[in-house]
Amino acid sequence: MTQPWYLEEPAAPDRAAEAAAREHQGQLTKPAGSLGQLEGLAVRLAGLQGRVNPDLSNVRIAVFAADHGVAAEGVSAFPQAVTTEMIRNFSRGGAAVSVLAGELGADLEVVELGAAVDPGPLPGVVPARIAAGTGNMRHEPAMLVEELEVALAAGRAAAERAAESGTRLFIGGEMGIANTTAATALACGLTGQRPETLVGPGTGLDPAGVDHKAAVIRDTLGLHAPDPAEPFEALRTVGGFEVAALTGAYIAAAQRGIPVVVDGFIATTAALAGVRLNPDVAPWLIHAHRSAEPGHDAVLAALDAAPLLDLGMRLGEGSGAAAAVSLLRSAVALHNGMATFAGADISS
Amino acid sequence: MTQPWYLEEPAAPDRAAEAAAREHQGQLTKPAGSLGQLEGLAVRLAGLQGRVNPDLSNVRIAVFAADHGVAAEGVSAFPQAVTTEMIRNFSRGGAAVSVLAGELGADLEVVELGAAVDPGPLPGVVPARIAAGTGNMRHEPAMLVEELEVALAAGRAAAERAAESGTRLFIGGEMGIANTTAATALACGLTGQRPETLVGPGTGLDPAGVDHKAAVIRDTLGLHAPDPAEPFEALRTVGGFEVAALTGAYIAAAQRGIPVVVDGFIATTAALAGVRLNPDVAPWLIHAHRSAEPGHDAVLAALDAAPLLDLGMRLGEGSGAAAAVSLLRSAVALHNGMATFAGADISS
Repeated sequence: MTQPWYLEEPAAPDRAAEAAAREHQGQLTKPAGSLGQLEGLAVRLAGLQGRVNPDLSNVRIAVFAADHGVAAEGVSAFPQAVTTEMIRNFSRGGAAVSVLAGELGADLEVVELGAAVDPGPLPGVVPARIAAGTGNMRHEPAMLVEELEVALAAGRAAAERAAESGTRLFIGGEMGIANTTAATALACGLTGQRPETLVGPGTGLDPAGVDHKAAVIRDTLGLHAPDPAEPFEALRTVGGFEVAALTGAYIAAAQRGIPVVVDGFIATTAALAGVRLNPDVAPWLIHAHRSAEPGHDAVLAALDAAPLLDLGMRLGEGSGAAAAVSLLRSAVALHNGMATFAGADISS
Repeated sequence: MTQPWYLEEPAAPDRAAEAAAREHQGQLTKPAGSLGQLEGLAVRLAGLQGRVNPDLSNVRIAVFAADHGVAAEGVSAFPQAVTTEMIRNFSRGGAAVSVLAGELGADLEVVELGAAVDPGPLPGVVPARIAAGTGNMRHEPAMLVEELEVALAAGRAAAERAAESGTRLFIGGEMGIANTTAATALACGLTGQRPETLVGPGTGLDPAGVDHKAAVIRDTLGLHAPDPAEPFEALRTVGGFEVAALTGAYIAAAQRGIPVVVDGFIATTAALAGVRLNPDVAPWLIHAHRSAEPGHDAVLAALDAAPLLDLGMRLGEGSGAAAAVSLLRSAVALHNGMATFAGADISS
C-alpha cells in the first residue's frame, strides 16, 4: 500500500534565498530591525518563494463551504439555510471576503462541499458536493473514511488550481453554520483541552447558548474520544467537509511550495490537523490574526504561532487572512523597493 | 490680543453620519461585531468625514525633517549628517515612507525645517528652514518663541496644502537625528514620567548609550522643568522643529476636518502636545501602531489611545501610519461594498 498523498513531504524552504534576503534587509536605509515584524516577514517569504525579492502580486482565496449535522442540536445563532445563502452572496460579490478579494485583486473561488440546501450551479462556485452536510457528531461520526478522503482531495484540488494559475500566496476560508462547534470539538481532540475552555459564541450565541454548545461538544468527545495522535480519525469523527478541505489545501499548498496565510479559529484548527498529519507543513503557514473566538489562542499556542493582527475579528471566510495580505505586501514592497545605504550614500 | 490659531476650535465630527454608518454596519451580511475593530473604524471615519460611506482614496503624507542641538551630546547611534542624507533619500523615493507612499498611491511631501546641513532645493521637498537645528536643550531652550510659532505654522501650512488637494486622510512623519531624545524629554514633561522610565534605544543605542541619553534628558528636565499644564513652553524648551510642526499639522488638520493617522513614539508625543494645547483635536487622531520604543506606551496611555497594529516597528518617517492605511481602506471597502441582509436575501 502506498503512502496517502497528504503524508508526502512538503517542499523545503530555500534557505539560501532566505539568507540572501536577510543580508539585503541589513543594507536598506533604516536602522537595523526598525521595521519590526515586516522585516522578518519579507525574509521568510523570500525563503518560501525561493527568491530574494518575493512577489505577492498573484494571491488566490478559496472558500470551502459545507453544512454540519450537529446544527440540529441548536448550536448556532443562525439557521442552516444561511450556508447556502452565503454561498450565493460569495458568488455575487457581496460577502466580506468577496469585497476584500476585490480590493486585493485576488482570485476568489468557492468550493461547495455539501450545503444542506444544494445551491445549484453558480458563477465562481466549484461544485464538489459530498453529501448534504456531515453526520451529527453528537450521535455518529461526522464523516465516513471515504468522505474524509474526498474532502481532503477537494482541498488538494484547490491548491492545484492555485499552482496552475501561478499563485504566490494562498488563502483558505470557510463557511458553514455550526462549524465553530465542529472546530472546537476538533481543537479539543487535537490539543487535549476541555470544551469549557475552548468553546465560544461563534456567530453570536448568548451565554446559555454557549453552555449548551459546550454540553454538545462534551457529549461528542465522550462518544468519539478523538486523540491528538490520531488526527485523521479526529477529523473524520468531529471535523467537517470544509475543515478537512482546508487541511488538504494547506498540505497540498506546502507540497507545491506555495506559502499560505491562515485565517482565524476554524482555519487554524484545520491547519493544526494538517501539521499533526504532516509536521513539515508548519513552515508554510503565516498566521494572519488572533480571532475573538476564545479557542483560537489554544490552537495558535499548539502551533507555536504568533499572528500579525489582533483586531477582534471573528467572521471567518478567510477575511482576517485577506486583511493581512496588504501588510505582507507592504513588507515585500519595502524589502524590494527601498534604497540601500551604499546606493543612497548614507552614513551607516 | 487675538487667540493664536492653534487654540481655535477643531471641526466637530458629524454625529448624524456616524449614527447612520453604525446603522448601516448592522445591516451588512455578517454576524454583528464579527469584523472587530474594522467596523468601528469605518463608523468613526464616517463621522470624521461627514459621509456615511467614507472615502480614503486621497491620502497625503507630510514628513517633517530637522536637526537637534542635543545631538552634540552623543545621544544617537547615527551622525547628524544622516538627517540631510535621508531628506535626499525621501526625495529620490528610496526611504521606507517613500516606498509605502508609492504602494498607497499617496502624495508625499517633505518639509525641511532646519537640517544641520542645508540640503538645498530638492524635488518633493518644501523649504521651510528655521535654523540649522534647534538649540542644545541640555544647556538652553531648544527654540525661541518665534521659532516655535514658525514651526507650528509650517505644520499648519502642510495641513492647508492637504486640504487644498482634497486629502481625505493625513499622515505626518518625522526625520531628525536625536529626535527620540527630544520626544522623550517632551513626553516626560507632558506626562510627568521620569526619563529612566521612558527612554529607549531610538535608532539603536546600546544599554550604556541609553543610560547616557537618560542622563542628558535628566539634565534637560532639570534645566527647563517642563510642565504638563504648559505644553507650548514644553514644546519650546525641549521639543524640536519637526515635532512642533507635527503638532501644528495635527491641530490644523482637525480644524479643517481631515482625519489623521498618527505614527509612533515621536508623532504621538507631538499629538499629545497638540491635545494638551487644544483638547478637541483628540477625536481626529487615529493611532496606527504601538512602537517598540519604550516611551510610546506612556504617551498612548496619556491619550487613552489603543493603536491598531503592534508589529515592533520603530522607524518613524510616518512608516507605521502608512502601513496602517491599507487596514483602514479594508475597513472602508467592507463598509461601502458588502451586501446587506435584505439586499442579499439572507436570514438574519
